[in-house]
Amino acid sequence: MEALSAIKIDLSRAGKPGETMTEYLPSAIAKLHSLQKGDCPGHELTGWLDWPARHGLSLADKIMEWKEQLLLSWDCVLLCGIGGSYAGTRAVEQALTHRYLSCSEEIRRRERLKPVLYCGHHLAEKELWELLEYLDEKNPLICVISKSGTTTEVGAAFRVIRHYMEKRYGTGSRDRIIAITDQKKGALRALAQEKSYTCFDIPDDIGGRFSVLSGVGLVPLALAGFDVRVLSEGADHFFSSLKTMDDPGMHPAVRLAATRKAAWEEGYCLDILSFREPGLAAFAEWWKQLFGESEGKEGKGLFPSSMLYSTDLHSLGQFLQEGRPCMIQTFLEAGNFDSVDASLEKRLRVPHSPDGKDGLNFLEARCFDEISRAAMEAGMNAHSARGVPCIRIVYPGTSLWSMGLLFAFFELSCAISALMLELNPFNQPGVEAYKQQMFRILGKTENPV
Amino acid sequence: MEALSAIKIDLSRAGKPGETMTEYLPSAIAKLHSLQKGDCPGHELTGWLDWPARHGLSLADKIMEWKEQLLLSWDCVLLCGIGGSYAGTRAVEQALTHRYLSCSEEIRRRERLKPVLYCGHHLAEKELWELLEYLDEKNPLICVISKSGTTTEVGAAFRVIRHYMEKRYGTGSRDRIIAITDQKKGALRALAQEKSYTCFDIPDDIGGRFSVLSGVGLVPLALAGFDVRVLSEGADHFFSSLKTMDDPGMHPAVRLAATRKAAWEEGYCLDILSFREPGLAAFAEWWKQLFGESEGKEGKGLFPSSMLYSTDLHSLGQFLQEGRPCMIQTFLEAGNFDSVDASLEKRLRVPHSPDGKDGLNFLEARCFDEISRAAMEAGMNAHSARGVPCIRIVYPGTSLWSMGLLFAFFELSCAISALMLELNPFNQPGVEAYKQQMFRILGKTENPV
Repeated sequence: MEALSAIKIDLSRAGKPGETMTEYLPSAIAKLHSLQKGDCPGHELTGWLDWPARHGLSLADKIMEWKEQLLLSWDCVLLCGIGGSYAGTRAVEQALTHRYLSCSEEIRRRERLKPVLYCGHHLAEKELWELLEYLDEKNPLICVISKSGTTTEVGAAFRVIRHYMEKRYGTGSRDRIIAITDQKKGALRALAQEKSYTCFDIPDDIGGRFSVLSGVGLVPLALAGFDVRVLSEGADHFFSSLKTMDDPGMHPAVRLAATRKAAWEEGYCLDILSFREPGLAAFAEWWKQLFGESEGKEGKGLFPSSMLYSTDLHSLGQFLQEGRPCMIQTFLEAGNFDSVDASLEKRLRVPHSPDGKDGLNFLEARCFDEISRAAMEAGMNAHSARGVPCIRIVYPGTSLWSMGLLFAFFELSCAISALMLELNPFNQPGVEAYKQQMFRILGKTENPV
Repeated sequence: MEALSAIKIDLSRAGKPGETMTEYLPSAIAKLHSLQKGDCPGHELTGWLDWPARHGLSLADKIMEWKEQLLLSWDCVLLCGIGGSYAGTRAVEQALTHRYLSCSEEIRRRERLKPVLYCGHHLAEKELWELLEYLDEKNPLICVISKSGTTTEVGAAFRVIRHYMEKRYGTGSRDRIIAITDQKKGALRALAQEKSYTCFDIPDDIGGRFSVLSGVGLVPLALAGFDVRVLSEGADHFFSSLKTMDDPGMHPAVRLAATRKAAWEEGYCLDILSFREPGLAAFAEWWKQLFGESEGKEGKGLFPSSMLYSTDLHSLGQFLQEGRPCMIQTFLEAGNFDSVDASLEKRLRVPHSPDGKDGLNFLEARCFDEISRAAMEAGMNAHSARGVPCIRIVYPGTSLWSMGLLFAFFELSCAISALMLELNPFNQPGVEAYKQQMFRILGKTENPV
């Protein structure tokens, strides 16, 4: 099954849930078909399914073309958004950007990427203040991303940024602000029309946490220098696998969902996404929102947490090995050695040390990536031997294409998984409770226009 | 009780654990006394208790003096360490450093702080490679921190860094490398003597995750420009509260430990440290190691996780409100409005918007900090109303002094909490399992010298 080979799932160390998952496969397959037929709960928000082939690839072309024709210069992108409006963009740029891009003019020149800055995803005064201080040194383009434009964090931050830009660039500020928002209605759409900002649409049939492959992710990433056609192609490759598969019970997204359901039935409380590239930390945050909001309803769901190998073996490792056995682990492994190679000009090896007093001569001349792989493999062995179910997801080496693939894979897995818990995967009714409390505390009486 | 007032604990929204904790107070007090008398399990590793008064304050003086007399120039500190060897330093510098310090020469000049870079806390080849590329533009001092010098991550990275420094600075490299290690034995001590590096000691009676107020944290922080005497004074203030308290049952560390024990007995699985300043993210990582390694033994412990307000209300908020109710939340709240004020030149307020289409006119002219406080308070109300026990820890506004206070507070709380689970809080036997697996995979046969 060639079309399925870009992502593999290995359940050999997944313990009892890895065995009992076969009982849940028929249900998982039924949920997949229900998603595809559009008769599942929340079916009005399944526009992300096969999105690249239906709209995303042509949108990516259009955005790349638009970007090439911009008659502006900019040296950074400031994304104003929260939740699904920023998490996917941050996941991609953190995974694929040189770690010191923001620190070095020379690295920026070489990498041909522009740093992405963020606001609107918090209410922290010091943080926003420091951003404004730094913006004075930069020449930013702003992407403000909100379906409604009335979300407190985004709305308040965008007021600040808009005033800043108008003060600094005058009427020219309109050319430096791009709004990604509802196609027709809402406060941000109205403001953007009044101010003549360039606009991109947030589709009506895609919720925030499933929106990274729409304009929500593609516009800021394109402006930062990424070829978002490649990102879309990775996702398209994944969705295409659904069209050519012979046996849906062998599809990795179906198998992951069935295994999660088995783990839930066994009483596990949390799932720890485990990865070994520091740059994937923001991807883990995207994943947490995806699963947390989709599954965390009606008293159900596996609480999403994350862990960086081998860093957190020196922090959470003890707990995983001997603490309360309430977790499963989902490991992300870059399977393709070659594609890691390709991203490095040359390999970094452990140098020779004459005396070897550090006891590490057995590592001499080995690549760090080989040792890193061994540490993750070792963690998987040690934790599964102890009884922690370890699911292993193997994807090609981290790249723009792979990020698209992973987004699509987890979106589908998550939707099936939440449906198997008999939930609507696409709503988030629980986030209203704190908002009402907040409005009460702040004495809000008026209604949004 | 003035001496206890720097940290307050509020259990009014802690639900049943907040009520039943009184049953566990006598045991918590007994564990505190056992720690103080030195007859608890792991008593040989309680050197952190009252450390500032016994050694830390004079060490801080000594380090500040040494730093002033260094005949070198440097523009960044590269810390090579993992786990407890870097987590505390990173917690302090991330909380108190301008967010864009690394990006701007002007900000560095104004702040009089030097960026801290990290290595040795991972095995990621790309990450280390990019560090080396960036180091070429910098003039670094190296702090290598390891009790033994044989930890794989630190040892392998330090081989790379040492070779880099020797190639770049020749024999002058010895002046740019500072080793913080065992007082007498171990591979790093031997190497440092051979190479004539300046050395600082890691005390024998303090384990890694309790070591931030020893040379482990004080040396790199001093080199980065922090006055580590103030950090030590904050911790000393906390430990002094133990000497002057009338009723140990009212002490916040004792009460926190008793509440955690009550939550454990009620069957809760995880604790989410919740905070609202993005700069505290690294502090949360320090906290996770502290509790994860101290409590995660013999099938026990609350799995440590974290959450940033209000950012993660748009990610994990849904789960907290309606997902499986397996968690408690520990909120960190900066109680002193004034000290937040003092850290900002002026306040940042939501600007006027003529039309108010964003529905946020009720926020006009309000400080972001006020709105941020309201969002956290709202989350606490909404989650506790749903049944999530919410513990609120109030500390003075984020400052160097407060960081010392918080380190000491959580160290003591954690030690008492782990003792109440009938554990040795200070060992971590479980981290050996993956190491053995890793050595097997990598074919290690030799023994460290």
